[in-house]
Amino acid sequence: MTSELSTTEQAALTSGSDFWHTTAVASAGLPAVTVTDGPHGVRMQASGDDLLAGIPATCFPPAVASASTWDPQLLRRLGEALGDECRAMDVAVLLGPGVNLKRSPLGGRNFEYLSEDPLLTGVLATEWVRGLQSRGVGASLKHFAVNNQETDRMRISADVDERTLREMYLRAFQRVVTRARPWTVMCAYNRINGVHASQNHWLLTEVLRDEWGFDGVVVSDWGAVVDRVAAVAAGLDLTMPGPDPDGDRALAEAVRAGALDAAPLRASAERVRRMVLAAGRREPGGYDAAAHHALAREIAARAIVLLKNDGGLLPLRAGQQSLAVLGEFARTPRYQGGGSSQITPTRLDDALTEITASTDARVRFAAGYPAQGDGVDEALLAEAVEAARTSDVALVFVGSVHETEGADRDSLDLPVAHRALIERVSAVNPRTVVVLSNGAVLLTSGWEADVPAIVEGWLLGQAGGSALADVLFGRVNPSGRLAETIPVRLADQPSYLDFPGEHGHVRYGEGLHVGYRGFDARQLPVSYPFGFGLSYTTFSYGAARATVTGDGVEIRVRVTNTGERDGREVVQVYAGLPGSAVRRPPRELRAFANVPIAAGETVEVVLHVERDDLAYWDTRLHRWVVEDGEYVFEVGASSRDIRATVTRHVGGDAARVPLTADSSVGEWFADPRGARLLGEAFTAAAAAAGDSALAALTTDPAMVMMMGSLPLHRMAAFPGSPLTADMVEKLVRAAND
Amino acid sequence: MTSELSTTEQAALTSGSDFWHTTAVASAGLPAVTVTDGPHGVRMQASGDDLLAGIPATCFPPAVASASTWDPQLLRRLGEALGDECRAMDVAVLLGPGVNLKRSPLGGRNFEYLSEDPLLTGVLATEWVRGLQSRGVGASLKHFAVNNQETDRMRISADVDERTLREMYLRAFQRVVTRARPWTVMCAYNRINGVHASQNHWLLTEVLRDEWGFDGVVVSDWGAVVDRVAAVAAGLDLTMPGPDPDGDRALAEAVRAGALDAAPLRASAERVRRMVLAAGRREPGGYDAAAHHALAREIAARAIVLLKNDGGLLPLRAGQQSLAVLGEFARTPRYQGGGSSQITPTRLDDALTEITASTDARVRFAAGYPAQGDGVDEALLAEAVEAARTSDVALVFVGSVHETEGADRDSLDLPVAHRALIERVSAVNPRTVVVLSNGAVLLTSGWEADVPAIVEGWLLGQAGGSALADVLFGRVNPSGRLAETIPVRLADQPSYLDFPGEHGHVRYGEGLHVGYRGFDARQLPVSYPFGFGLSYTTFSYGAARATVTGDGVEIRVRVTNTGERDGREVVQVYAGLPGSAVRRPPRELRAFANVPIAAGETVEVVLHVERDDLAYWDTRLHRWVVEDGEYVFEVGASSRDIRATVTRHVGGDAARVPLTADSSVGEWFADPRGARLLGEAFTAAAAAAGDSALAALTTDPAMVMMMGSLPLHRMAAFPGSPLTADMVEKLVRAAND
Repeated sequence: MTSELSTTEQAALTSGSDFWHTTAVASAGLPAVTVTDGPHGVRMQASGDDLLAGIPATCFPPAVASASTWDPQLLRRLGEALGDECRAMDVAVLLGPGVNLKRSPLGGRNFEYLSEDPLLTGVLATEWVRGLQSRGVGASLKHFAVNNQETDRMRISADVDERTLREMYLRAFQRVVTRARPWTVMCAYNRINGVHASQNHWLLTEVLRDEWGFDGVVVSDWGAVVDRVAAVAAGLDLTMPGPDPDGDRALAEAVRAGALDAAPLRASAERVRRMVLAAGRREPGGYDAAAHHALAREIAARAIVLLKNDGGLLPLRAGQQSLAVLGEFARTPRYQGGGSSQITPTRLDDALTEITASTDARVRFAAGYPAQGDGVDEALLAEAVEAARTSDVALVFVGSVHETEGADRDSLDLPVAHRALIERVSAVNPRTVVVLSNGAVLLTSGWEADVPAIVEGWLLGQAGGSALADVLFGRVNPSGRLAETIPVRLADQPSYLDFPGEHGHVRYGEGLHVGYRGFDARQLPVSYPFGFGLSYTTFSYGAARATVTGDGVEIRVRVTNTGERDGREVVQVYAGLPGSAVRRPPRELRAFANVPIAAGETVEVVLHVERDDLAYWDTRLHRWVVEDGEYVFEVGASSRDIRATVTRHVGGDAARVPLTADSSVGEWFADPRGARLLGEAFTAAAAAAGDSALAALTTDPAMVMMMGSLPLHRMAAFPGSPLTADMVEKLVRAAND
Repeated sequence: MTSELSTTEQAALTSGSDFWHTTAVASAGLPAVTVTDGPHGVRMQASGDDLLAGIPATCFPPAVASASTWDPQLLRRLGEALGDECRAMDVAVLLGPGVNLKRSPLGGRNFEYLSEDPLLTGVLATEWVRGLQSRGVGASLKHFAVNNQETDRMRISADVDERTLREMYLRAFQRVVTRARPWTVMCAYNRINGVHASQNHWLLTEVLRDEWGFDGVVVSDWGAVVDRVAAVAAGLDLTMPGPDPDGDRALAEAVRAGALDAAPLRASAERVRRMVLAAGRREPGGYDAAAHHALAREIAARAIVLLKNDGGLLPLRAGQQSLAVLGEFARTPRYQGGGSSQITPTRLDDALTEITASTDARVRFAAGYPAQGDGVDEALLAEAVEAARTSDVALVFVGSVHETEGADRDSLDLPVAHRALIERVSAVNPRTVVVLSNGAVLLTSGWEADVPAIVEGWLLGQAGGSALADVLFGRVNPSGRLAETIPVRLADQPSYLDFPGEHGHVRYGEGLHVGYRGFDARQLPVSYPFGFGLSYTTFSYGAARATVTGDGVEIRVRVTNTGERDGREVVQVYAGLPGSAVRRPPRELRAFANVPIAAGETVEVVLHVERDDLAYWDTRLHRWVVEDGEYVFEVGASSRDIRATVTRHVGGDAARVPLTADSSVGEWFADPRGARLLGEAFTAAAAAAGDSALAALTTDPAMVMMMGSLPLHRMAAFPGSPLTADMVEKLVRAAND
């Protein structure tokens, strides 16, 4: 028990011993255990000198790609594989997954995050954590919370209203914490409504522990703690990196001086102790690097999103078409972003080699643009144009040149040289396929009309090259779907006016309307909507049926593969509540299923919308409330390709808002009991006064209009009011009796 | 002196004696004086029974119309006329002008407010107050502040960031208070960031009195005070309506009990006393109702905005064209909104009578739609269509059926019956002119293509009918300009997602981007832009010249009336600062001039952009700062019809933000002195340690990128940091020495 440790030992347990280890406490038999960066690979620092260089490990597809699979089972297998590598490297806790929402496509770290939607994020991350922890290795759910930008990330205050916090920015955390029970949660660098996440008692204790029942360790992001004592008081357990002897002393001193209760420090030390002991229980192990590479390739291929394929240009017909493979990225893959998640891969596939190996026909390569910088090189361009002109099909590999932790982007445009390559090549070869490599959304609106086919290849990890060849040649039928909207223009983006803020504050002005919720609410066109992705086959949908069950709504729909290839369909269910008493986005993802369907076959897909996911956060009651109403369930192949709609009544939660003296006349009349009581009071007062003006006060439409928003006690304060303060007091008692 | 009054007498002075009078204090020789509603007429309650019925007074054009004149001199004459009527009715203080910004076109009280732009609002209201007060009558600048909706208006908290408050929602108040010194300011019903305006010390004392130097009376909106003691403590002087004996007693008791200092109560009573004494100094007077009607007509005609006039259909050629006058509004004018501003007019012109009197040719009238409700009546429609079919020109009078204090609108659409009238009439008569009557923006996008001419007639007051005839027949060449943007769709409106809020809070999510600032920032199309309005003549612009002066920038531009009619041009200057260190709208109105130009003549227009108006509110320094930079001045006929552009360097204010331990590495390096000091410290530390990793920390681009946003004290806390806490302390001292 930690209570047997001295205060000084407890304090020592709550900070690291170096960058990547906890502090050993010999007297308690507690070793130092290793925590290290993820989330798409195990990044173990190779030497003391370079924080960012790691020993080789499998570089799986970063989150931007794995999320595009929309396949929870794949994420689980990914978690398991990462757990195996952790065991092989003696890692106790892997720092992932990252479940921050992609509030803006400019976010520099978006490639490490899953989606702009909290349900998709939460479902996928839950399976990742389950997979990892099934190997006896702990996850670290991060960055808690509202860490959605790199600009001024150590200080910026994300100024967000309560409902948006709950429904959008905390919702994926809540799902993963309550369902997958991660060993640790990592607090974010930023402030939330002015308070540092690292010393935010509301966040770390009231919400995370008291409401969600989290009993693991809250670890700081590296360097996120400003004040050790305030952090421990707020509920932070483990400050990283270490050592921090001054902070340890300050903690012990605070307890001795009575400035900090002994209880939170003891509790934090106890949680760290339990984590260290749990880590000691895992089996040592190894992993099969070739098998992991194959898994990385499988996930990568499933992550690729086919955005456009006019005339069925893809898949390529192996051996029958001469190919021009253009763009440095085909030879030198761009496969992960910069910063703490950077993996030294065990091997690295490139698309050029894999394409060449996939066909007997002629393959010509040209770099098209310089390997460094984004300047146009006319000689390289000319060489690429010539290759394209003399080939049946041109594959143009372009994308983003820079995405990294620590810096947000300032544009969604392709580099000028890449854009030029598309233009020049498509001008000489109408059979041009653009293959994108990018960690976050790039605009396609400027050039998409010039090419018949676009393959969104994200950052695909070390097997991206082979995975791209798998899809281009049809060995894998693409089934990836967008987990983030591709807008027509950056200026259409819901957060556009408020990113990245200034002078220490960023207003989350779009509120709930993140991503597709905002585009839909403002009825704006997009280039490719959330949930979109083509296949080499086609699917048709039958009518949807919905049954309200005790814990939600079961949706059934028959989906037929109407083409000639086996494929996968991602069936999506969006819910809306027209006429809701609160503002809601037109549609929100509430369920999805990833279903393999053989050519010509029909499958009945059963989706379960959980009742909890229909709830909104009520800011009067400070709780989740399912509103009574006629919910519209839209079943579709994307958020803007709805194939079937069904409406069902869902009974509401019992959640009466008490009437008070500050409740308005309109609110009193909207409540059955309140209406009866107030009506009686008005009638009696009017009769007593025999006053026509008083009668008009409740019958004249203009006066009623003016009065509807009048709180009862303010009405009572008006000279000549039919109500007195005494009467209001009695009414309030009677209304809530 | 008020100090000679007892505490009880002081308290009594700070509440009214009834709905419309202050409390007399006989011992001090203070009579009760009258305060009554404006702002577009003097509304004196006619009897004790009906709060909303007034004795006859001139119903001048409501603010929506008077603002569309863009003519400060007209507003001044309007204020003078209102002052004369106040004197005639023994009114001491007229409750106006209303200078709240039109945040959303749905705002139910928009017709009482001037514009979506704070400069236009402030300049016009300043002259209105000067005019009124020149007659010895006090103004009441309202509703202070951020009262931009009717929904839940008594409780709603407008949640607005500091910079938006200062630059948008307080800016017109600041201008009017500091330049026109209104006798009173009326506090709003709502809360601002959670605090009631009526008990908001920051607003009523720190900003209004301490910063702006206001020395008049803060009066409550009627019923806005929740807690008399808290209100007086915050700086509120006069609670209305009265009597409020309980509140008076509570105040006196609070002073006796020491819960409230004696000083603020004494100060409030003294301010009310001074106001009552000032009111006693005004001369009694009368007014010429016919002359005021003529002024109402002049302002109304100048307020009309000609939105469209294809083929020069307007002006009508008197005597040469048979006319169909269609729509009930032509016979029964809609000329003001509902609520406290409603005036019983001295007379009322209708368009049908005035049009008939303006021409010898045949005029046929048909109501077109029912006088009440908005249902389609086929018989009325058919009659109108027949009249249109058999006339040379069809004039269709349509508009909004309901705008009132107490309720926001839920749509910007024309009533169905009005829309049907336009469709059916324009289908049979291509020479159709739509004349709109409306208190706030109506969408035109659904039908504007069907008609060659649109006249925006707002709510024009009692002489609107004759004013419309003046413009339709060309007796007045229209020069009104839009003071609010007409969007293509409601969903494009910057505040669309956040209006009117819910559960007591409304997030001002669009921030600074109110009205045209938002449409421009998001590059959205609009139907008719801010500042737009056609004339029966045309104007051409020469090049603009700009000279930086001590107190701003003088802009000169030559404007030529290139048509054959005398006319007025409203020359507008917008400023922007590309590359600003803070987020700014692309362009903001910074000066305008309303210039009569005779046919064929050229006038050199001189506009003065005040240096103060170029400042932004710095949230680090909590003050206005003029940023150093190359300002772009756009001179145009509307916000989207820029005719000349000139760029000038404006020197910045001395406003160094002190470097602190919480300043980031990037901020230290951006400051010349900070860069030198920190650079020296790094070099020394690296040399002392002889450590390559340390050297990499400042030279490796990836590490520098990661470190740029690291506050200095957080860097010092990292294990192995080149900085220590001591060094940081020394650096901070040296940097700010």
